[in-house]
Amino acid sequence: MEFSLERRPDTDRAPVYQRIAGHFRAEIEQGRLGAGDRLPTIRALARGLGVNRETVALAYESLAREGWIESTVGRGTFVRRRSAAAALPAFEPALSPLVERLLDFERARPRYGAARDTIAMHALVPDPSHYPVEGFRRALARAFAREGAELLVYGGPQGHAGLRAIVAERLRGEGIAVDAAEIVLSHGASEGIALALRLFARPGDAVAVEEPTYTNVLAALVAHGLEPVPVPMGHDGLDLAALERVLARPEVKLLYTIPTFHNPMGVTTSLAHRRALLATAARASKPVVEDAYQMDLRFAGKPVPTLAGLDERGLVVQLFSFSKSLFPGVRVGALAARGRAVEGLLALKAAADLGGSPVLQAALAEFVREGGYDRHLARVRRRLRGCMAAAQESLAREMPEGVRWTDPQGGYQIWVELPAGLDTRDLFADAARAGVLFAPGHQFHHDGRGSSGLRLTLARVDETQVREGVARLASVARARLAERGAGAPALASAMP
Amino acid sequence: MEFSLERRPDTDRAPVYQRIAGHFRAEIEQGRLGAGDRLPTIRALARGLGVNRETVALAYESLAREGWIESTVGRGTFVRRRSAAAALPAFEPALSPLVERLLDFERARPRYGAARDTIAMHALVPDPSHYPVEGFRRALARAFAREGAELLVYGGPQGHAGLRAIVAERLRGEGIAVDAAEIVLSHGASEGIALALRLFARPGDAVAVEEPTYTNVLAALVAHGLEPVPVPMGHDGLDLAALERVLARPEVKLLYTIPTFHNPMGVTTSLAHRRALLATAARASKPVVEDAYQMDLRFAGKPVPTLAGLDERGLVVQLFSFSKSLFPGVRVGALAARGRAVEGLLALKAAADLGGSPVLQAALAEFVREGGYDRHLARVRRRLRGCMAAAQESLAREMPEGVRWTDPQGGYQIWVELPAGLDTRDLFADAARAGVLFAPGHQFHHDGRGSSGLRLTLARVDETQVREGVARLASVARARLAERGAGAPALASAMP
Repeated sequence: MEFSLERRPDTDRAPVYQRIAGHFRAEIEQGRLGAGDRLPTIRALARGLGVNRETVALAYESLAREGWIESTVGRGTFVRRRSAAAALPAFEPALSPLVERLLDFERARPRYGAARDTIAMHALVPDPSHYPVEGFRRALARAFAREGAELLVYGGPQGHAGLRAIVAERLRGEGIAVDAAEIVLSHGASEGIALALRLFARPGDAVAVEEPTYTNVLAALVAHGLEPVPVPMGHDGLDLAALERVLARPEVKLLYTIPTFHNPMGVTTSLAHRRALLATAARASKPVVEDAYQMDLRFAGKPVPTLAGLDERGLVVQLFSFSKSLFPGVRVGALAARGRAVEGLLALKAAADLGGSPVLQAALAEFVREGGYDRHLARVRRRLRGCMAAAQESLAREMPEGVRWTDPQGGYQIWVELPAGLDTRDLFADAARAGVLFAPGHQFHHDGRGSSGLRLTLARVDETQVREGVARLASVARARLAERGAGAPALASAMP
Repeated sequence: MEFSLERRPDTDRAPVYQRIAGHFRAEIEQGRLGAGDRLPTIRALARGLGVNRETVALAYESLAREGWIESTVGRGTFVRRRSAAAALPAFEPALSPLVERLLDFERARPRYGAARDTIAMHALVPDPSHYPVEGFRRALARAFAREGAELLVYGGPQGHAGLRAIVAERLRGEGIAVDAAEIVLSHGASEGIALALRLFARPGDAVAVEEPTYTNVLAALVAHGLEPVPVPMGHDGLDLAALERVLARPEVKLLYTIPTFHNPMGVTTSLAHRRALLATAARASKPVVEDAYQMDLRFAGKPVPTLAGLDERGLVVQLFSFSKSLFPGVRVGALAARGRAVEGLLALKAAADLGGSPVLQAALAEFVREGGYDRHLARVRRRLRGCMAAAQESLAREMPEGVRWTDPQGGYQIWVELPAGLDTRDLFADAARAGVLFAPGHQFHHDGRGSSGLRLTLARVDETQVREGVARLASVARARLAERGAGAPALASAMP
């Protein structure tokens, strides 16, 4: 059958089974399949599409429930008569205006296809083929054997004491004075971000954020009715004079910042910048949420103390995560805070979900304790160092004049800026056709306006792919610049 | 040493290590331990208190960080000179007013002690000694062996397709027309509640809730700036006339209700009540969040269709949980919704934490699929049936005249109402001294006002303990009623 799962602009973020169901729904609605027509068997379709049978079964189940098809044991699956199709619900409850805004925000994100030979430099998710699966499986089994039923009770809002002790010890190793009682575990840094924002700001308040910044912090702000107030980012970090002005506004209750291996820019600020940032926050008496989600991923250069490590006044709440340095599927992040901030985080966490799962927290504690995490980190850093060298070399060789990019000492991402006036959204489709995916800069802007910047990531590629990906991107950029030279109108640049 | 971990009113909700640290902090502050005094070894103190060494080590670590004590390898742990004690942070950032309200709310909850022979009828957490630990361990190992690294990637906001298919199938078995595409997995029903409330109501909006209702839904309302509007509960369910009036108010955006094995009352509403409730909601065009967190725990009587099962108009979002019927430590609950409500929930969930852990969701799917969950349910229901019979018999035999209670057909909780004018908060300390714990009714009121009702749970007791617990409670109630007969002033009753 003529049916592909690749890149359909409206549906490609949907689960595979929904895309299959959507295909048949369209076929029936448009009359290409009529009442009584037989659908392929689950087995045949699964084989044909290269997906597993459960996926196809889910699609057929979904279509059957909606009244489009029916199955008869031993005979097969057939299109039903139209009159029997289920009626739509009569009532569509009004969703919260914040949810409507969030849905608009989600719709504005780029949709990524999945053609087979595409080089994926858009996503910030480490490649599963590198995960230390066997070591973690053993750690999980050991933790379960030792702690048993205790891991299946509520673990409390603060999280597993063993893992908190380990996280605290590691943070102390980075110069941050924190003990296990000051750590709150969260479902990845993502939940930690929402908790930290809500700790200091209530709906209607504003939050200072770097621009560009992590897309999901923008989503969290929308979801909780908080207003982002952008502080421009340069290649040396956020603009401190602008920060001073923003923090002076009474409705701005805190700063959210990523000073180390910034997302999306990859930039790490200097010690002097950090001291000045803390002094600025202290003058304004505004707390700082420091997202240190990739702090363990330095592969070059000399470590700079984190804001939390420099903080002598109790200004900083720090976020930590295992999602990028190990894998995201355990959903474990951590917050380090002081005094009443810890109490407040615990109350928010208890009201949010009564606390995380002790099973995975205990397994992670075991894995870190026996050295599996540090061994994995050494491998990740080595691989990243190689990929980054390849990327820098290729960028220098391939990119046309007027293109700039960052040279990070850790983390997965590089920020590439095309000449002012280009909107990287407009390059995206060409690049996808050329076989390379990147993250266009507009999604890191609080208002979604166009950007001449884009983010390339090294999370799911090897050195060969990096070189090829950069070459493909460069040829697309060259073509676009040549077009522009031929008379396309210039736009204002999004970047300083 | 003279030092017990039992029932210290201000600290007993804190982790054990904090209580140990608090003890020494007080000893030093009050001069009972002076500079240079030696503390017990970790091993000796752990043995003396019956806790593990890590707990004591955490306590000492915390005290050392605060500057109270110092350890010297080979010599021991000593109280430091006072001048060396660490300075407190100079800056205490202002917490969000919602967090301050939440902290006040948390402080108003009763604090439960843990004396050894106390009969615990206050908590709604199944006893870990009954958990099917070995079966779940095997399911976890199988799921991990089969799906491997795929379980360690982000699972997406909707959650593991296999578990969603299973939950949908079970709900269809209860007459609810739902498929896997309409299920969103959450971190227990707790997170599900917060997502469902936020789906329809934004900060400043109001939500109709039963009174009394689940304490944590009240906490979630506070945390998100939503106002609870109480609808009185009777022994037949919520007051439908009051509901009609409340839902007519424009600021009230939805109803949160627990029609099956209500928490705290144990009440299940009739089919007629459910149809009338849905008709009322339909007239007001307001959605209903149905918390069916204990729906699998019916041990007597005939099942009544859930609101979601009766809903023909798409009014209902239903919550399901494994926390009470299996164990809470996997932190898996589910939401069943329709149409745009599913989209909205997915956007909220993505912004909240990018989705739950595929590891535990896959393990749970495996455990349910191979029959472990149904076998466990059969055991839980049998045990609950016996405990409930013992409780009803003991209540009838022991309780003084004027006391009423519910007779649930499922779930863990019974609601006991003492004669009007008594506030069960005032009985709590006497009952704890007599060796039985219950949940006083005030914590289930949106405004925390006193209640003549109390909740008894059968989650952590056997039949013998149930009989003894009810007898202890009855003797406390009799004593209090005798006092009142002797001239104590009467108060207005909290219950209709």
